[in-house]
Amino acid sequence: MPRRSAPQVAGSRAQTLDAAVELASVVGLDGLTIGRLAEKLDMSKSGLVGRFGSKEQLQLAALELAADVFRRVVYDPAVREPAGLRRLNAICDAWIKYLGDPPFPGGCFLTTASVEFDARPGQVNTAVKSVMRRWLDALEREAAAAIDHGELPTTTDPKDVAFTVNALAIGANCAYQLERDPRVLDRVRRAMRVVLTPSDPGRQTDEPAAAHN
Amino acid sequence: MPRRSAPQVAGSRAQTLDAAVELASVVGLDGLTIGRLAEKLDMSKSGLVGRFGSKEQLQLAALELAADVFRRVVYDPAVREPAGLRRLNAICDAWIKYLGDPPFPGGCFLTTASVEFDARPGQVNTAVKSVMRRWLDALEREAAAAIDHGELPTTTDPKDVAFTVNALAIGANCAYQLERDPRVLDRVRRAMRVVLTPSDPGRQTDEPAAAHN
Repeated sequence: MPRRSAPQVAGSRAQTLDAAVELASVVGLDGLTIGRLAEKLDMSKSGLVGRFGSKEQLQLAALELAADVFRRVVYDPAVREPAGLRRLNAICDAWIKYLGDPPFPGGCFLTTASVEFDARPGQVNTAVKSVMRRWLDALEREAAAAIDHGELPTTTDPKDVAFTVNALAIGANCAYQLERDPRVLDRVRRAMRVVLTPSDPGRQTDEPAAAHN
Repeated sequence: MPRRSAPQVAGSRAQTLDAAVELASVVGLDGLTIGRLAEKLDMSKSGLVGRFGSKEQLQLAALELAADVFRRVVYDPAVREPAGLRRLNAICDAWIKYLGDPPFPGGCFLTTASVEFDARPGQVNTAVKSVMRRWLDALEREAAAAIDHGELPTTTDPKDVAFTVNALAIGANCAYQLERDPRVLDRVRRAMRVVLTPSDPGRQTDEPAAAHN
């Protein structure tokens, strides 16, 4: 029986992309080839090429979808909380839940893509950087709001907070994916809490919790 | 001109492995194939198969070498410091230097291998877990010594310290490899310092720096 061409396949471009992200989360974004995806979907390679154009276009579309899912699960619900420390903590809670029960079988897609493409210039590298910068900017905005509201010491560098929370989540993703030990999720929450502890009026502001010098 | 067979190649198994680790740090451990390495070394594939046996054996040997290099650069010099907080800080200093100027062009080899193989059972996955566990154990031993010596609060969980320092380093590696911004190295040092701050006799021990509950 010949493989089906794109128009014959039940399911939209979005469903094809879902399958692409799922596959890439296990075999890596670099392993996401037109051939492998065609096999998984029982489609012809030419049908997929017609839909996405090239391996790189497919990778870029998968990355964009994964970033959308991440934002929808981790960021969007937290916007209900007021800007600042409460929103940052809501982001971290949702993030840890996402790390412990990721929507893709291979864990955080963006971490994998970042590690794979950091040393390889090209469109995917540029796209990974752009997604990561937008996310760090979002975290930094909340940290700055927390400082403005007096929730974090004025000596705190909001970029330090964004870096630290993001690094802890990336490290937790690696640890959890490797060992599947749920205690990792408790450990990362405790470590994030140290960074996101409200200013203690009794503590001197030249000894901030988030930016010891 | 025919490619050289293994015995004809100037250079030892160790030199071949150096090239393998260098290649894998850029293309990933999964991209480290006999064919690719043969091309890089201008050797025959059969010569390499004779030397290593299989792609998996080559990957395992490369991983072992990378772990040796890491230990030699990051851990061994710190042993001159007394066990506990001083040794932990010496490890972190050497680690950050390693992250900023890694011996392999693609950055921390173990992070890349961990992200690549966490979802793929097999010998490489088992070896990555073993290397990572040994490293976390070493960090935990130093944290436990620091607690014993009264350098960290008695309420500190040494596994939390090991997890947090390791997660920060993994996250810093990802961030630095992506953007090559040296400020990342300052940020991770500050974040590690928060975890590795000596107990303040003026601070209540039920409010430890490293294990808020």
